[in-house]
Amino acid sequence: MTDASALGILAGGGPLPGQVAAAARAAGRAVFLIGFEGYAEPAVLAPFPHEVVRLGAAGRILDLLRAHNCREIVLVGPVRRPSIFDLRPDREGTRILARIGRAAFAGDDGLLAAVVRVFGDEGFAVIGAHEILTEAVGPQGVLTELVPDAQAQSDIARGVQVVRALGGVDVGQACVVQQGIVLCVEAIEGTDAMLARAAGLRRDGVGGVLVKLVKPGQDRRADLPTIGPATLRAAATAGLRGVAFEAGGTIFAGRAATIAAAREAGLFLIGLDPGPVSHPSDGEYP
Amino acid sequence: MTDASALGILAGGGPLPGQVAAAARAAGRAVFLIGFEGYAEPAVLAPFPHEVVRLGAAGRILDLLRAHNCREIVLVGPVRRPSIFDLRPDREGTRILARIGRAAFAGDDGLLAAVVRVFGDEGFAVIGAHEILTEAVGPQGVLTELVPDAQAQSDIARGVQVVRALGGVDVGQACVVQQGIVLCVEAIEGTDAMLARAAGLRRDGVGGVLVKLVKPGQDRRADLPTIGPATLRAAATAGLRGVAFEAGGTIFAGRAATIAAAREAGLFLIGLDPGPVSHPSDGEYP
Repeated sequence: MTDASALGILAGGGPLPGQVAAAARAAGRAVFLIGFEGYAEPAVLAPFPHEVVRLGAAGRILDLLRAHNCREIVLVGPVRRPSIFDLRPDREGTRILARIGRAAFAGDDGLLAAVVRVFGDEGFAVIGAHEILTEAVGPQGVLTELVPDAQAQSDIARGVQVVRALGGVDVGQACVVQQGIVLCVEAIEGTDAMLARAAGLRRDGVGGVLVKLVKPGQDRRADLPTIGPATLRAAATAGLRGVAFEAGGTIFAGRAATIAAAREAGLFLIGLDPGPVSHPSDGEYP
Repeated sequence: MTDASALGILAGGGPLPGQVAAAARAAGRAVFLIGFEGYAEPAVLAPFPHEVVRLGAAGRILDLLRAHNCREIVLVGPVRRPSIFDLRPDREGTRILARIGRAAFAGDDGLLAAVVRVFGDEGFAVIGAHEILTEAVGPQGVLTELVPDAQAQSDIARGVQVVRALGGVDVGQACVVQQGIVLCVEAIEGTDAMLARAAGLRRDGVGGVLVKLVKPGQDRRADLPTIGPATLRAAATAGLRGVAFEAGGTIFAGRAATIAAAREAGLFLIGLDPGPVSHPSDGEYP
């Protein structure tokens, strides 16, 4: 990997693909973005050289990456989890799907790990967005003046227990806990949709917390949890008192803006020590 | 427990409290219903001797049960999980809350187990609704002409894995799986609300399945999973192909009506062998 090669950015939704591209460019590196049709936002892609392709067009994606001299690639930005039926793979995509196998579609990590493996086989190195956006990785500790009280700490501990159990079966990254009660649990609807639901499920009394963690065993080169100003605003609307994320494993969609949004909404924002949340590299879940 | 004593029925929402009362009466037993304010349906209580009380009015509940010569009691029908703050306990309720402790509010089972224990301490025997409604307990095997195909069987197996993991941390009883993808997971919103959400999350191609199980270690005298015609209609609206429940641990809100609703909606309905889903009596989760 020489600096002469471009960074290939496979872009899903939201602002992060643009932030990765800007950070790589600021470091003097050429970039090429492949925006997934229906997910990548045109305004995010516009400032950079890019093409828009269908998710299933694997052959076209590989051709574009080679044509633009990309050796390292980053997968960043949410993509709605495709069913094997709506991928509409091209010829290369069909070949790759056969290699991946249907089993990979059973869990998020299975599929992402398979995608990372396929790119590796094709001669590309997949790196994590957090390796480019080092400034955007959420640090450990409380980032707001407001700190979690005893009830909030207890809710965070309960949330960590629940999200780890979920992660152990490769489902979701987040839950909302209020006064010890698990109000909602994330599957594929995403954190914002889960927060929208939390508002209608809340109990009287002190508000709950959002807990969002990296899955045990998750490959950090794909789909790291993301928190941004919109997350904090949605948490406030849901009546929560704060957000707990995993330090070193969460990407802020704009660090200063995310912390500022927490302060404006009167929420605490805390980065949890990833220590007790193990990430075995052998693929075994604890 | 002599037949001369009445069966006390602590009634939450839905039709089941009335079905328990009718079944006990048909067996020649007197009944007395305590309907929880805001949950029990007046039309369900009306045919039987009853009073309506607040959830937190523990002293009044115990007095009523004694005044009506109840020795055995059944807890049946859903009650929205109260926060410790909106219980508004009476004097006896406050004494009992102090005995139960806040810890019990952390999970469904903790609280229900504590409630069963308190009634036992007060001289009442809590029995399960399934012991009265023997006819309404879901049996093992496929109850419809339609049977799950290989994809549906695989989705059911994935759902069992996920619901068991959730149950292990005392959250929810159900999830929806389509083509191996876990579309949604139940916390306290309840199965109907989860199914309403599933409709917006479904993928193209063959529909998913609802899997609803007894929690590992759950005390079967409280809050057994319930499936009724409304569940089947909601599952059909969500684009599902079938419903899998745990045989021997699920109460049908009307057995014939539930099976008929499945057939009319073109869904399969299958009772899973509870064998692989262990229910240790020592309170340990596997």
